[in-house]
Amino acid sequence: MSLNRKHLLDLDDFSRDEITQVLDTAESMSEILARPIARVPTLRGRTIVNVFFEASTRTRVSFELAGKYLSADVINVVASGSSVQKGESLVDTLKTIQALGADMVVMRHSQSGAPYLAADELECSVINAGDGWHAHPSQALLDIFTVRKQLGDLSGKKLVILGDILHSRVARSNIWGFTRMGMKVVLCGPPTLLPWNFGKILDSTELLSIELDADKAIDDADVVMALRIQKERMQGGALPDLREYSAFYGVNNMRLSKAKPGVVVMHPGPINQGVEISSDVAYGARSVIEEQVANGLAVRMAIFYLLAGGR
Amino acid sequence: MSLNRKHLLDLDDFSRDEITQVLDTAESMSEILARPIARVPTLRGRTIVNVFFEASTRTRVSFELAGKYLSADVINVVASGSSVQKGESLVDTLKTIQALGADMVVMRHSQSGAPYLAADELECSVINAGDGWHAHPSQALLDIFTVRKQLGDLSGKKLVILGDILHSRVARSNIWGFTRMGMKVVLCGPPTLLPWNFGKILDSTELLSIELDADKAIDDADVVMALRIQKERMQGGALPDLREYSAFYGVNNMRLSKAKPGVVVMHPGPINQGVEISSDVAYGARSVIEEQVANGLAVRMAIFYLLAGGR
Amino acid sequence: MSLNRKHLLDLDDFSRDEITQVLDTAESMSEILARPIARVPTLRGRTIVNVFFEASTRTRVSFELAGKYLSADVINVVASGSSVQKGESLVDTLKTIQALGADMVVMRHSQSGAPYLAADELECSVINAGDGWHAHPSQALLDIFTVRKQLGDLSGKKLVILGDILHSRVARSNIWGFTRMGMKVVLCGPPTLLPWNFGKILDSTELLSIELDADKAIDDADVVMALRIQKERMQGGALPDLREYSAFYGVNNMRLSKAKPGVVVMHPGPINQGVEISSDVAYGARSVIEEQVANGLAVRMAIFYLLAGGR
Repeated sequence: MSLNRKHLLDLDDFSRDEITQVLDTAESMSEILARPIARVPTLRGRTIVNVFFEASTRTRVSFELAGKYLSADVINVVASGSSVQKGESLVDTLKTIQALGADMVVMRHSQSGAPYLAADELECSVINAGDGWHAHPSQALLDIFTVRKQLGDLSGKKLVILGDILHSRVARSNIWGFTRMGMKVVLCGPPTLLPWNFGKILDSTELLSIELDADKAIDDADVVMALRIQKERMQGGALPDLREYSAFYGVNNMRLSKAKPGVVVMHPGPINQGVEISSDVAYGARSVIEEQVANGLAVRMAIFYLLAGGR
Repeated sequence: MSLNRKHLLDLDDFSRDEITQVLDTAESMSEILARPIARVPTLRGRTIVNVFFEASTRTRVSFELAGKYLSADVINVVASGSSVQKGESLVDTLKTIQALGADMVVMRHSQSGAPYLAADELECSVINAGDGWHAHPSQALLDIFTVRKQLGDLSGKKLVILGDILHSRVARSNIWGFTRMGMKVVLCGPPTLLPWNFGKILDSTELLSIELDADKAIDDADVVMALRIQKERMQGGALPDLREYSAFYGVNNMRLSKAKPGVVVMHPGPINQGVEISSDVAYGARSVIEEQVANGLAVRMAIFYLLAGGR
Repeated sequence: MSLNRKHLLDLDDFSRDEITQVLDTAESMSEILARPIARVPTLRGRTIVNVFFEASTRTRVSFELAGKYLSADVINVVASGSSVQKGESLVDTLKTIQALGADMVVMRHSQSGAPYLAADELECSVINAGDGWHAHPSQALLDIFTVRKQLGDLSGKKLVILGDILHSRVARSNIWGFTRMGMKVVLCGPPTLLPWNFGKILDSTELLSIELDADKAIDDADVVMALRIQKERMQGGALPDLREYSAFYGVNNMRLSKAKPGVVVMHPGPINQGVEISSDVAYGARSVIEEQVANGLAVRMAIFYLLAGGR
């Protein structure tokens, strides 16, 4: 079993069948993770290099452990302390890493599109672990996996994403992924933080819509996903003060009463408690935030496995 | 064999039997370390995450190698380069790490008590690798282990700790540990750096005393432990100039002549040569400073082994 | 098979036979690297510690992977985040690392000679991964290995090194190594960046010469090695502007037409495209820059293997 693709750059060109294949494989990986000794020899002798040009704990550690659980050797390269400081070009850095024996490169970069450049130039697999505001496909896959575990069939279900959609690579990849699975996706947030120029995605499907009123957006929702508010946005004037944001767009118990009874609450983390999500919701019964993290391991193991040719 | 506890936070609630159990287990680990291939499969498939919010070489590498010698997977997370930069709360960071599959978290933090907060919130084991001025229990256990190797029975023996006791987590945990083993502990240092408000510990045992005169303190001592002087303390006025400190409290050969002939000289490292300890003493025959480092490996292997249930 | 030496500090005292032994061993390692699962159990149970006091990607990752391919445990210690920040002396840091169980220390340091100090003080093997302007012996060995793969017998062949020879540890070690193998080495660059005080090396062999004119230097060359230009040199006035440098000393196709038809073009990386080397040459058919990186793995595996006693 394999994905018939070498790289994971975004979900925009993934079919429903391909996404389903990743999710099914991740189910098998979940079973491995539930064993007392959660290790399989699948990628023994393979080298995975994490190249992170931006700070990260959860995504980096998640990929590192996913590789180790499959018995790969995992090497970390962070931008500080690397020859990127010497002004080496991105492509040269990556070609060097490939020449050092990397079978797969997991890459986070502040510039949108950087992993595409890498994929063009490298012969080894490139996995986009987040590029600028553009895409974060492994996060979207783990989100879809988490929702499928909760809801079963996704078709026709309703997801609301609240917050700074404009600057969110998580939102972008999730829009592609969830609509491809047949879900309705409603985007909600301050007008200054919504993707009014989002033409390509908005036009691509009648499953996507924008709603400015959070209560209306959440009405009858099956899934509510709050995005992290970057406090830096306030300086640019795009964001009112945090209390006002919280009042209009924060996910709290009162607002959730508009949603379906079994509504699933998600957040890609790290959360700002009491800003985009109230603490009682974030740590409450409807929250799957910790499951998202745990599922991320299984999904990333599936990604490695499938890109390696499913052997 | 197990410790019947999930966490290692400090030694204040350790019985003599429990400490002895750690030391005896560390003896077995020393034997493993003496083998040509110092590896055992004890923790194969377990994941240990080192989460260091403060810089460290010796402690971090010691825990990392201890875990690897037991065949665990060891992951490092340092504060810089992590989502702590994004303002994530400590508890959320640790819950994320647990959700990523950590079986044990080794944690260093600049705030006293942080590992207790973590232990309250996590289901996995938490090992305190140093929290603020509060505690450093693995260091105390390796110090006790080192002294027992030198002196055999500890009961009634005399330990002098010299230096900045007030700000020392090493001193605090050692006071608990050595008095619990029946040793007399004498604290000595400039009055501004002594724990005059140290009520809880000072009242807990008649084995602990304060002596301002270093020569009197060292008189008849079996063990002399010098603590690192933080030069930053001078700015606050709590510390005179270094030459004066050295004259009054430095451990040198003349001062050691007051101690018992076979006196054992210790230092948790890193040392300021010629300040709190003279070079000839630090590298001399009575010094066990390098043994402390090597013993730290065995003791930390024992800690992992026992907290994992001794399987 | 072994090198009959404990450390690798520089190539100045390496005989031709010893260098040949490293190259031959590296050939065997290349064969291992070509296997589907490029792992051998040679150094199982050994601990290699990378101690990097200067930023590095390619060298650090190369040593890390070389160790892992031989089944050693590899630990990274970087200066930032280490107790070097606490003012610990270099020797104490290294003794601590040795006491923690290091069998080999791979060390990069900004001060020339630092690895010699380490080798004097430590019982474990020390491998110089670059010290100040002084030496970078593993780079020189991989360069010689790369040239031997291209040219076969090295004796009598001509190597030109272009650029900032004065501040280049790569050049220094390569001069020792290539002349020891019987090659003629011509140094070429701006007079301010040439080693006019380079007495010890220049006098040591009639195989070494200086030529200020790049076209004359390259005339009839078998190998051309461009060195990285540190742009910081311009501030000190030692370097004209980059365009002028490139015109006089840059390696480009026109200049290479003076060399032998099958000339081999090298660069230790990272490159400044269009400054010391033109892009079409760097990525062209005569360039072995990527091979240098890949060969580095095999050579470093050979170094570890031979220093460990060839067992």
